[in-house]
Parts: sequence; structure tokens; C-alpha cells
Amino acid sequence: MIDIKLDYMPIANHEWIGMEPLLKVVHNSLHKGDCLGSDFLGWLDYPENYSKEEFGRVKAEAKRLRGMCDALIVVGIGGSYLGTRAVYEAMMPYYHESLSKAERGGPALYFIGNDLSTGHIIALMERLENVETALVIVSKSGKTLEPATAFRLLRKWLEEKYGDDAKDRIVAVTDGEKGVLKNLADKKGYRTFVVPDDIGGRYSVFTPVGMLPLAVAGIDVDGLMAGAAYMRNKLMDENVSNNICYRYAVTRMILLRKGKLIELLVNYEPKLIYITEWWKQLFGESEGKDQKGIFPAGATFTTDLHSMGQWIQDGSRNIFETVLRIRHEKEDIMVPEDEIDGDGLDFIDGKPLSLINDYALLGTSEAHGTGGVPQILVELDRMDEKNLGGLLYFFMKACAISGLLNGVNPFDQPGVEAYKTNLYRLLQSDEGGK
Amino acid sequence: MIDIKLDYMPIANHEWIGMEPLLKVVHNSLHKGDCLGSDFLGWLDYPENYSKEEFGRVKAEAKRLRGMCDALIVVGIGGSYLGTRAVYEAMMPYYHESLSKAERGGPALYFIGNDLSTGHIIALMERLENVETALVIVSKSGKTLEPATAFRLLRKWLEEKYGDDAKDRIVAVTDGEKGVLKNLADKKGYRTFVVPDDIGGRYSVFTPVGMLPLAVAGIDVDGLMAGAAYMRNKLMDENVSNNICYRYAVTRMILLRKGKLIELLVNYEPKLIYITEWWKQLFGESEGKDQKGIFPAGATFTTDLHSMGQWIQDGSRNIFETVLRIRHEKEDIMVPEDEIDGDGLDFIDGKPLSLINDYALLGTSEAHGTGGVPQILVELDRMDEKNLGGLLYFFMKACAISGLLNGVNPFDQPGVEAYKTNLYRLLQSDEGGK
Repeated sequence: MIDIKLDYMPIANHEWIGMEPLLKVVHNSLHKGDCLGSDFLGWLDYPENYSKEEFGRVKAEAKRLRGMCDALIVVGIGGSYLGTRAVYEAMMPYYHESLSKAERGGPALYFIGNDLSTGHIIALMERLENVETALVIVSKSGKTLEPATAFRLLRKWLEEKYGDDAKDRIVAVTDGEKGVLKNLADKKGYRTFVVPDDIGGRYSVFTPVGMLPLAVAGIDVDGLMAGAAYMRNKLMDENVSNNICYRYAVTRMILLRKGKLIELLVNYEPKLIYITEWWKQLFGESEGKDQKGIFPAGATFTTDLHSMGQWIQDGSRNIFETVLRIRHEKEDIMVPEDEIDGDGLDFIDGKPLSLINDYALLGTSEAHGTGGVPQILVELDRMDEKNLGGLLYFFMKACAISGLLNGVNPFDQPGVEAYKTNLYRLLQSDEGGK
Repeated sequence: MIDIKLDYMPIANHEWIGMEPLLKVVHNSLHKGDCLGSDFLGWLDYPENYSKEEFGRVKAEAKRLRGMCDALIVVGIGGSYLGTRAVYEAMMPYYHESLSKAERGGPALYFIGNDLSTGHIIALMERLENVETALVIVSKSGKTLEPATAFRLLRKWLEEKYGDDAKDRIVAVTDGEKGVLKNLADKKGYRTFVVPDDIGGRYSVFTPVGMLPLAVAGIDVDGLMAGAAYMRNKLMDENVSNNICYRYAVTRMILLRKGKLIELLVNYEPKLIYITEWWKQLFGESEGKDQKGIFPAGATFTTDLHSMGQWIQDGSRNIFETVLRIRHEKEDIMVPEDEIDGDGLDFIDGKPLSLINDYALLGTSEAHGTGGVPQILVELDRMDEKNLGGLLYFFMKACAISGLLNGVNPFDQPGVEAYKTNLYRLLQSDEGGK
């Protein structure tokens, strides 16, 4: 079942009531489509309005690729891969890279073109030398340096490996009409899917951007979309006080005004770290502008309780935590007795490990509360495609509302161009360097 | 060659001069051993004073384990594994988990006992079911919940797998005299190595804590120690103005006083992310106390320029960056031409990828500087054991100096106990839960 709840909510009721009229304005403006950045609202009703015909083609193409390859390379950076990777890592077991295709339930995904590391791409080509491979490149324009560079190298590598058949192993998710990748794909005869014009990268996981590679990997993309649609309906509620994404948006904004400048998204399952990375882009890129914005950071517990735990418990009091709790684990294991009671922890004998992890969450929340760290709890029934689709949509809408409440355009990213401009100038003039 | 330099230094010379007298006091007090936390200064001269006899035994034991296993499980949390993992990931190629023992140059390391995830440990046991395995547990007391729980499960698993021979496949790095793990090891007949009493976890990477598993993996531990010894000598300089760790410590402290509350450690090579995790513990746990301290965070570029880049360029102006630059790459690859100039990036044709990555660093530094982000550049000649050993020692001493300048004890971590106390109470009473 899908069930996503909020708990804790460290603000007073009158603080919430003071924000309700503003929330109603923002709600109306978002749903009427006259807010800041209103050219990029395609994600809002996408889980309901998406093209069923196109989604069918995505699944058919995924089936073809699944049959053809043991490894799918996903070339993309930022919003062109983070949502895909977040879902993929969350749904796969640990150490999935060592599993066979049958054990894994589909081809393995390899994410590349998201850095400029020499060792990374060389090792990928060596790794896949004797592996049946296909490639999906995700790039709206085709001109972003990192994926374009990786794609040049890998296209050549695939053409050497498969000759003319390489074109049947390359799929482009790109602009529908124009752009250099669209042109190239048409010339080369690659299959293509469209990145909608009205959906920015960080809001695009439910489009072919995320759904094509996830379907290739064997992820239940219908479940993801159903979870998103469920959450969309739930969050349409005009009665803003019932609406959990409004609760979340307002709470974090009030905490910011009280000097809580850093938000830590906390999980208790290390493989969820790419959900954190996706979330950091979503909120960081949406709100970090005009010299404003909460700094989004992540932590994996209990791991980081033994590294960042001291800081969180008693460092500068400028942080709050948003904690992800998963109520039901897929599997469990009982802690065996220590035959000679060597470790002095007899109170864990025979206890399920998932229970100990959940007690760690409760004990940590209590400790951090005592230490002065406000907390928001986001609970999922279980980590499956439906709950995960719902969670991602929840964060997307909360982020839009939060940005609009803060008076910024949550759908643009003007600051991303600055480093590119300098980099292109350096490359063109070939000044400086090592 | 080993060569570690600092550059940029975004403070004025008179700001530095104003701090020199204080630095001299801190320098003397650290080296005389009468500073705060002076019971934990064993790391300071360790690269010179370490027991050569013990180091020889570490290497001999590593040789024995290397012959015996294809996988070494490292059980430990926080400072008991982060330094090991930082060095291991930095020195291994990408996708090393798919390599054979011969290709990798030694057994693969698997890090566990650093969380309470059910799926993680179940998947590890499945992964290693048919693999020759040995285990090193690193725990000063043996009573820390996470490693103790994993060790119970894995000890039983190894005993089922190897019977009585399991005891020859388990090595404990623990207290030299007392403690439950030491007792257990003596009863069971495990080989043991000592965690020195005067070195805290986050300063322990050059002791058997890090050196034993790293030597098993085939890392050049002599090179690591030589790099640390080189850096120790370099940083003894009483003339504080020549001393790069003092420059770093003072610069970050002055930036903090100017409202730069968050330090981002930036790398341009994704596999260095565990150096960031190690560094976050080092600085976070040392300085995050008494409601003070810079928040240590990490970023991998250019990856995160497409997620956190907007925030860094133009969000709240409360951050500064410490950028790791590696001057020479081990290998390189030339970007091929785009045969139909599809991507419009003809200026990268035929350029080495490592040069493009380095231009990205220069272009980004310029962009972030324009955006109001102060930066410190830490340059390594290359990513090898010597430079890495030097880098880790550099950060350790800079951290100690920085903490003492801020008037905190950089060697304790009183806040780490709070969550454990609650967790143990919950487990003992079995109240609450799911």
C-alpha cells in the first residue's frame, strides 16, 4: 500500500495559521499557472495528463533494449540522471553490480557523462568490453559539455564494437524538434524520445528522461507513475491545512527565518543516498538564488552519527533535519546471541535488525531534539515503486510551493551558466591549463 | 614526487599577521603537549615514532591474509573505517568491484558494520557466499552497537563456512589490554593488533586501524607512511607563516568570523568522495561542539555543478570552498572529433579529457569567485600513496590547530553518546518500535 505521512512539525499552530492566507495565494497561482516560471509547470499534472501512447512506446522500447543488452549506459548530468539513479539505487539490492542479469531482473545501469573524470570513462569501457551494451543519452540540447564529451567517446566505442548495428543500440532522449542531438539522432537513425519543453530537468523523472532507463532496468514504471498520480491527487487539496506538502514547505520556511540555514535530509538506509542527491538538486537549484536559500545537505544514519553526529548534536545551532522513515522492510534478519556475551549487548539478542535500526531512529530523534535540532519526519509505508513515486512528487510540489513562498522562481537556474561560460572561453583560447 | 601546496588564500595579509601571535601559542602548546585534549596527541609524531616492529607484523599479517582470501570484510564505523575507505577508493580504479583479485592487485575490501541496514548485511553474505573471505574488525572497546551487531552475524557466518579454521580468518584491531573484543579475541584465538590509547578514531588512519586492511588490499602502506612523515616534518616549521596547515586553519577561522558558516570540500574526481567523508568526520567531530563550528560539507565537480551549482553560484553567501586539485592524472584519453560537428563543441576536438577537467576547475573557481565564494586551493602533485599520506596528515594537523584556535578540544566527541544512550534504553525496555 502507499502511505506517506508527515510527523513532528516543529512549529507552533499560530505560526502555521499566520501563513495560511499566503499559502492559498501561492496554491491558486500555481494551479492557475500564473506564478513565476509558469512556462515550466508541465510536471504538475503530468502524472495524470501524460501521453499514454508515448508511455506505451517507452515501455516497448525498454522491452527491446532489455532483450538486447546486459548493460545500459545512461549518459546525462544533473536532472538528466539524478532521478533515474535515485530510483534505481533505492530499488536494487546492495551489491547489485555483482549480480547477473537474471538475478538483477534486467540489465545493469551505468551512469556516465556526469563528470569529466578520465579514469571513470576509461574504466567503464574496460568494464563493458565483453558485455552486451546499449546506451541512452539524455540531453535536451545535446550541447552540455559533460554528456556530449562522454557521448563522443562512447559512440565511437559502440561503433567499433557493433559497426552499423550501433545505431540500434543508441537511443536519444532530447528535444522534440530542434537541437544538435535531435539532428544527430535523425541523421544517424537513432530512436528518440522527447524531453517536454515545459518540464525542467530536476522535475523530469516521470517523463521518458527517467522512465525509459528505469523500465530497461526492470523497475515497475507503472507503479512509479501510479504513486505520483496518487500523490498529485492528494496534494490538490485546497484546504491547505490538510496538505502535507504545504506543511513541509511552510515549516522549513519558518525554520529558515529562525536562523536554521541548513537542512539535512536524513536516511537510515545507505543506498537511499541518491534520493538525497536528487533532493539536493531539486531544492538547491530551485531556491538557491538571489543570495538566498536553505543549504540542502544529506546524512546517512547511523553511519554518519559516528562522523557528523557530534556536530549535529552540539555544533552550531543552525540546522534542522528532515528524516525519512520506512515503516516496513522487505526482509529481516535476527541478531544471534553472543555465545560468551563478549560484547555486553545482551539486550539485542534475537532482535530483528530492522527493529534495532528503527529504535536508532527514535533514539536519535530524541537526542537531536534535546540538542536543539528541529525535525520533520517523512514516513513511507515501504520502499517500493508506488511509495517512491509518491515521495518524489511530494518533494517536487513542496519545492515549488516553498520557492514561490520565498519569492523566487523555482523553475529556473540562471547561475549554472557562469562556470560553463568561463570553461568554454578557456577551452577556446587554450590559455592557462596545467 | 610528493608536493602539496596551498593557493588562493582569500584573506588579507594584515588579517594573517594579526593571528600570528596566537598561532605561535597554539603551536607551542600542541608540540609541548599541554593543550586541551593532550591525552590524545599520539598521532602528532606517529609517522616518525611508530613501532617499526609492529608495522612489520602488520605487513606480515597482511601478506598472510592476502594469500588466503579474495575478499576482506572490514567491520568498523566512523574513524574505524573512514580513513581506510578514503585511501582504498582513491587508489582503486573505478568499477574495481568487478575486477578479479589479480587485476585489482589484491583482495577486495568490503566495509560493513557502519550502519544498521538489514538489506546491506544480507546482500553482503550472499555476495560472498562462494568467495574466499577473511575479516578484520576494528573497534577499540568492542561494544559499539553497529560493528558488534555485524560481527555477531558475520562471525557465525564464517564459523559455518570454515568451522574451526574461522579463527585464522578473523583479526581484531582493538584495545591492547582490556575490553570485550580483546577478551573475545584471546578466548577464540584471533590474531590482534592494537589501537593506541592516545590516538582517537578520526586521527588513526596511519595506525594498524587503517594500515592492516590497506596492506591486505595491496596499497603501498610504506608510501602512505612516508608521505605522512614528509608532511609531519614540513609542518613542524616554527615559522608559522611558512606553514601551510597554519595558513589553512587561520583562513577558515577568519572566514567563519565573516559569516562563512559552511565549508565545501570540492573534488573533481568522484571516487575521492570518501576523502570528503573522512574529512567531514575529522573537522565536524573536532570542531562541532559547544554550539559552535563550521558545517563541513562536500561536493564533487563537475557533477554537482549541475545540481548544487546554482546554489553555490548565487544562493546564500555563507559558504566557502576548499578545492582539491590533482596536477597529474595517471592516464588520459583524447576526445575524438564529432564527425558531423553535431554538438557544436569543436573546441574540444582532440583535447585530453584531463585538461578539460582542469580547465573546468579554473573556470569554476573564477565563476565562484565572481559570485562571492571565497576559495582555498589544495594542490597535490598526483594521487598516489605518498601524496595522499601527506594530504591526510596535513588535514589532521590543520584540524587540531583550527580547533585549538577556536578554543575547543579537537580530540573529544562528547555528543556522540546521546543517541546511543537513548537507543540502548529503548532496546532494553523494548518500548516503542514499529
